[in-house]
Amino acid sequence: MDRGKLNWLSAAEAAQLVRQGAVSAQELMKVCLDRVREVDGKIQAWAFLDPDHALAQARAADDFRLSGQPIGPLHGVPVAIKDIIDTADMPTERGSPIYTGRTTSRDAAVVATLRGAGAVIMGKTVTTEFATRTPAKTRNPHDPDHTPGGSSSGSAAAVASGMVPLALGSQTSGSTIRPASFCGVYGFKPTHGLIPRPGMFLLSRTLDHVGLFARGIDDIALLAETLAGYDERDPDTRPRARVPFVEVAREEPPLPPLFAFVKTPHWERADGDTKEAFAELQGNLGERVEEVELLPSAMEAWEDHRTIMQAEMAGNLSKEWERARELLSPELRVQVESGREVRALAYQQAVARSRAIYDGFAELFAQRYDAILTPAALGTAPKGLTSTGDPAFCSLWTLCGMPALSMPLLQGANGLPLGVQLVGPRDGDARLLRTARWLVGRLPAE
Amino acid sequence: MDRGKLNWLSAAEAAQLVRQGAVSAQELMKVCLDRVREVDGKIQAWAFLDPDHALAQARAADDFRLSGQPIGPLHGVPVAIKDIIDTADMPTERGSPIYTGRTTSRDAAVVATLRGAGAVIMGKTVTTEFATRTPAKTRNPHDPDHTPGGSSSGSAAAVASGMVPLALGSQTSGSTIRPASFCGVYGFKPTHGLIPRPGMFLLSRTLDHVGLFARGIDDIALLAETLAGYDERDPDTRPRARVPFVEVAREEPPLPPLFAFVKTPHWERADGDTKEAFAELQGNLGERVEEVELLPSAMEAWEDHRTIMQAEMAGNLSKEWERARELLSPELRVQVESGREVRALAYQQAVARSRAIYDGFAELFAQRYDAILTPAALGTAPKGLTSTGDPAFCSLWTLCGMPALSMPLLQGANGLPLGVQLVGPRDGDARLLRTARWLVGRLPAE
Repeated sequence: MDRGKLNWLSAAEAAQLVRQGAVSAQELMKVCLDRVREVDGKIQAWAFLDPDHALAQARAADDFRLSGQPIGPLHGVPVAIKDIIDTADMPTERGSPIYTGRTTSRDAAVVATLRGAGAVIMGKTVTTEFATRTPAKTRNPHDPDHTPGGSSSGSAAAVASGMVPLALGSQTSGSTIRPASFCGVYGFKPTHGLIPRPGMFLLSRTLDHVGLFARGIDDIALLAETLAGYDERDPDTRPRARVPFVEVAREEPPLPPLFAFVKTPHWERADGDTKEAFAELQGNLGERVEEVELLPSAMEAWEDHRTIMQAEMAGNLSKEWERARELLSPELRVQVESGREVRALAYQQAVARSRAIYDGFAELFAQRYDAILTPAALGTAPKGLTSTGDPAFCSLWTLCGMPALSMPLLQGANGLPLGVQLVGPRDGDARLLRTARWLVGRLPAE
Repeated sequence: MDRGKLNWLSAAEAAQLVRQGAVSAQELMKVCLDRVREVDGKIQAWAFLDPDHALAQARAADDFRLSGQPIGPLHGVPVAIKDIIDTADMPTERGSPIYTGRTTSRDAAVVATLRGAGAVIMGKTVTTEFATRTPAKTRNPHDPDHTPGGSSSGSAAAVASGMVPLALGSQTSGSTIRPASFCGVYGFKPTHGLIPRPGMFLLSRTLDHVGLFARGIDDIALLAETLAGYDERDPDTRPRARVPFVEVAREEPPLPPLFAFVKTPHWERADGDTKEAFAELQGNLGERVEEVELLPSAMEAWEDHRTIMQAEMAGNLSKEWERARELLSPELRVQVESGREVRALAYQQAVARSRAIYDGFAELFAQRYDAILTPAALGTAPKGLTSTGDPAFCSLWTLCGMPALSMPLLQGANGLPLGVQLVGPRDGDARLLRTARWLVGRLPAE
């Protein structure tokens, strides 16, 4: 074990070393903070990071363990939290000047759960403005002239650059999958309602998901297992038996999975790199993959997604609109203005259609396929910081509330990472991770 | 036992006699059908009633019982079903010429449950057009020149006139409470989501409730206990432990209940009869009732109710609007037209405000009161058949999804019945029935 590189350990490995007493939470945190000092000047992944506070929490975790009390599955593991998710001990500014210096006395549900599992909340990672598309300061860790993607820009970049093993983000269109793809990490958007959202800034009840970032499938499973649950304050969660994500994700599938390769109407817009990489992937999978066309009903999904997102955004940002619209970015103002014009009829019809669209996919999974295989983004991270990229390959799955995983398995000609996206049926989260692991094992090692 | 008056038995009594073999389901049905022949020419409560089919079902119930198999709590008891609720063996025309002769091969969830409990589905009762406010043919059983109220007109009138002991209706504004009040029966609108709605015409997911009609609290409890449940097709229901409604409703409250008399801003519009009757009721209750003012936030409830109802109605009637709007009544066309103009923003804000309004009531119940006491309608049934009356005293409670019971305890100077409405906290349905029974016992016998 190279103690200077503890920051690159997986969360599962780190937790085990802490549990065994081989590494202290403080040592782990110090190495992560060293890494921040080393690389964050260029990357700028953090909206708030107080090294002393982070270390004090790590010390408390060590003291707790030494007291002999039982410890949780993430004991001593640093986790970064997207700055739209409330923390009682750090500001939560939501990427907007309207909330500069905003503090709250209450942890979001996911933060409270993480603390209960022993995690050390390291700091807050940069979000775009209210988790929408207006870019923030973070840069791509692979090339600072490129966007890290958004809106969970800081979370993806911090995990990718070894500053922290785990991070929480969110996704309303492609805000987890896209930055994960651009930064070269695993990004997981679980089934809508799997992870409770109270204390996370609500942009769109219908579309908002908590997103997870890690550098491996095991860690994604560990984080999902910790956070899945019921919260009566989130009407889209429901009580269910605990899913052993870690165990299921490690299992060998009883049969080799069959993938549905779905190009979507946006395939034409994908980069040459993406098309080439997917052709190669298809070749590797041979008979285990079949190309599947979207049903005609699904073609309206992008439009429906926009209708729902804009309408709900306008509702959830109405206080900000009324009191401080001059502090919203011009881009966001345009979105809110459009949202305020949406008719309740169009909104309801979009919601109703999205259920019908999902029914089509449910059928596909029930009859034949284990997972949908599709790009995570049009290509590698675009150059420049004026846009966080296009969520074209995400909106459909987000609309349907299906679990989606971006896996850093490909590379563009420019050397930047390119994600493979796997999508499963609702509530098939753990099996999707198992399928993902099978896929990784199937590919030729580089 | 006067065998010619079996139609006036309560459902609980009838079920017991059938169980004991003292009365057959066929005899019970015959007496109910006799009553229909006697009075329905004037009342016109039925949209569909095939006496032979009703008797055949009763015969099947008798055969089943004689076979020695275990029987359900409503075995052999006739039940009437509002004509917006699907039945596999009878047409469901939804009070609209668009659906004349419409049949379906599937029972609504509640109908299937009733059949499972042994009930005999007697026929379909008249609904106003799509359960909205356009009147239909039914007349008030106490005076055919007066409206029976709506939209569950036939259900209320059929139970009131002794044609059937139990009936199902629905409520989106005041469609159960108002006709119950006008016809002089018990009408119960349980907590939103307590009783599953699949197979009932959906007017407004947020506001639609299944409504229950009977001539006594015991029967309301029996029906509620039978029908409460989870249905995965109705996202507003949830799994919960079975509530022993019948047992709870029969219990003596551990302490005498305290009532909050809420006049609402519509009190001024109430008839002199209503004001007088409530003054007397207040006198009878003495210290057990306190007048409580609505919170300012609740004042917007009627407006919010209209926004939500019109918007959702426009959505749920969009197919009818597009294909056959000339077959909608002019009144309904106006409603749909308004609904189509509602903004998604206004709609969402109304939904959000309604949650806040309910929180105010929840507080009231948690701190001090057992039930809210309020009129069921402005007064007795208005003369004429061109309107079904005003839901002013219902919309607020419907908006909040709170359980509400109309009790036929008062009378106007014209001799027509006048309902007392009790409203409880969400999920306090069984206790509300217990409180209601206490109130009945407290009043001087006439």
